[in-house]
Amino acid sequence: MPLLTHPYSNQLRAMLHTDPQVIRTLQQVIEILGIFACAISGIRHAAAKHFDWFGGYVCGIAVAIGGGTIRDVMLGVPPFWTTDVKYLSCTFYALVLVIISRRLMRKLDNAWFVFDTLGLAFFTIAGLQKTLAQGHPFWLAIIMGCITGVAGGVIRDVLLNNVPVIFHKEIYAMASLAGGLLYWGLYELDVSIPLNVIATFSLVCIIRFIAVRYHITLPRLHEFPETNS
Amino acid sequence: MPLLTHPYSNQLRAMLHTDPQVIRTLQQVIEILGIFACAISGIRHAAAKHFDWFGGYVCGIAVAIGGGTIRDVMLGVPPFWTTDVKYLSCTFYALVLVIISRRLMRKLDNAWFVFDTLGLAFFTIAGLQKTLAQGHPFWLAIIMGCITGVAGGVIRDVLLNNVPVIFHKEIYAMASLAGGLLYWGLYELDVSIPLNVIATFSLVCIIRFIAVRYHITLPRLHEFPETNS
Amino acid sequence: MPLLTHPYSNQLRAMLHTDPQVIRTLQQVIEILGIFACAISGIRHAAAKHFDWFGGYVCGIAVAIGGGTIRDVMLGVPPFWTTDVKYLSCTFYALVLVIISRRLMRKLDNAWFVFDTLGLAFFTIAGLQKTLAQGHPFWLAIIMGCITGVAGGVIRDVLLNNVPVIFHKEIYAMASLAGGLLYWGLYELDVSIPLNVIATFSLVCIIRFIAVRYHITLPRLHEFPETNS
Repeated sequence: MPLLTHPYSNQLRAMLHTDPQVIRTLQQVIEILGIFACAISGIRHAAAKHFDWFGGYVCGIAVAIGGGTIRDVMLGVPPFWTTDVKYLSCTFYALVLVIISRRLMRKLDNAWFVFDTLGLAFFTIAGLQKTLAQGHPFWLAIIMGCITGVAGGVIRDVLLNNVPVIFHKEIYAMASLAGGLLYWGLYELDVSIPLNVIATFSLVCIIRFIAVRYHITLPRLHEFPETNS
Repeated sequence: MPLLTHPYSNQLRAMLHTDPQVIRTLQQVIEILGIFACAISGIRHAAAKHFDWFGGYVCGIAVAIGGGTIRDVMLGVPPFWTTDVKYLSCTFYALVLVIISRRLMRKLDNAWFVFDTLGLAFFTIAGLQKTLAQGHPFWLAIIMGCITGVAGGVIRDVLLNNVPVIFHKEIYAMASLAGGLLYWGLYELDVSIPLNVIATFSLVCIIRFIAVRYHITLPRLHEFPETNS
Repeated sequence: MPLLTHPYSNQLRAMLHTDPQVIRTLQQVIEILGIFACAISGIRHAAAKHFDWFGGYVCGIAVAIGGGTIRDVMLGVPPFWTTDVKYLSCTFYALVLVIISRRLMRKLDNAWFVFDTLGLAFFTIAGLQKTLAQGHPFWLAIIMGCITGVAGGVIRDVLLNNVPVIFHKEIYAMASLAGGLLYWGLYELDVSIPLNVIATFSLVCIIRFIAVRYHITLPRLHEFPETNS
């Protein structure tokens, strides 16, 4: 999905004078890296639970396409992965890589974290723009951007029979929501879509990097003495 | 959704001579109380699992809108919460209330139970009527009413990594199903929709109150010596 | 759904000269046996977790119709069980049978395994053909056939708060995928649909029987020393 060719932005876009082909290629590279990193994340979690190859593939799929699928079902459009086999095959290559090369996986540990964060930023913006393109209001687009970015990880944790990690440990959804709010603000200020995308993308990545680096988390809820309903 | 302006009932409705504005306001108050009580229920369960604020919000959302979302996806219509921001913001206020006032939450313990039951009755009827309005048969409307009322709690328990409480402990779905059957019966007997709604609403609440008060539960399934498939 | 009256196959079909009424009846018997066996499987797992009758019914429903529901939502068509009450009532009869006759259940232990396997083969082919009938490519039909056959069991395990058994123990999805690939291959070779269905059905059953008989499983994923993302 071409992030910078938002339907509302034909005019604004000329402001940046960027080569569309370069931008498009860049986006496709980021999308594939994001899908790949998400798939790797799912497969690694599956490995920690001693799943077999099929279980690993399904967990990889869940992280890579789960959020976008929920978004598309809510929006009433065909799930994006049903129109192009590349998402399923990309996850398949991730599975093969995990199976044949444990050493490489360990060496690339930090790379996966970076790719995963790029993926979060990419999926957030893809969710924002797809929702806006369907004519929905901004508040819904921000929610859908967040769902696109984080719901896959929740499905993975449900399939693994774990408590979803983003509900009690990491700043992940907040980065996506902050990105969505920035996108809205810059849009209202008539900032061009390409600049807006770059700013949003950077903000999501920066918040996630800082949160992980300095172990910043959201406050926990107070427990009640008794929960009966 | 105006429960008493069922498409089939324009004629019957005049029988009751009730002020539509009063009824409409009453319904909106019950709907908001129900959403609020469901959200509080989700957030409290999240607190018991030491979730952070975001986790609490998602669990609140799950209970408040999960059932209606599944119903709308099954019926092929846009999920109700995507057309009005009030459902998400109502859940947000519930989160703020839980965070700022533990004492109030404890004092209102019984109130939440009452609101939660009103919510179950309201959601059951909303699900029934929305399904009938789409031209579906009564058996499907009863199932959809039950899904609207109870599926949110199941999603909450799945997200919390608990066994869903309505599968082994409380009479909850049965109250919804009994309400659906009563609605069908009274409809076949040509009882006016407003009267029907009041009777159904009361029945759901009464069954739930009695079941909780006298610890009435459904029988458990016998365990088999071995389960291999 | 009449498996042998594939839209693409009116011509090919005449090749077999089989009585359509016999075939149709056979399919309906297999479908009902498959639904029944899946429901029994769900209810038995629920019994092992001490669920009540309602919990057993929902788990039975989940296995019997969960996969087909996900398929239909992905394809953007009404879920198959919303158009005919027989799927829900068949699950209800399965529940009654489990409740009233523990002895019969134990005696029929092997029969359930056979019916369950017939169901897997039937659902795989039903998913394949429904997806192709919507004009989708073969790779998607194979995925949808697999989802139709196996996703119900995953939903059951999620509701039971178990790790899904098909992710780490049994060959189940592989039988479905192999059947889908065979169907594609025979289709490309211009084999008639009835013959193709019979071959695919047999292959799925044979793979599943052999895998269970000889305890064949997929290899497990290697665990990584640390999983942090």
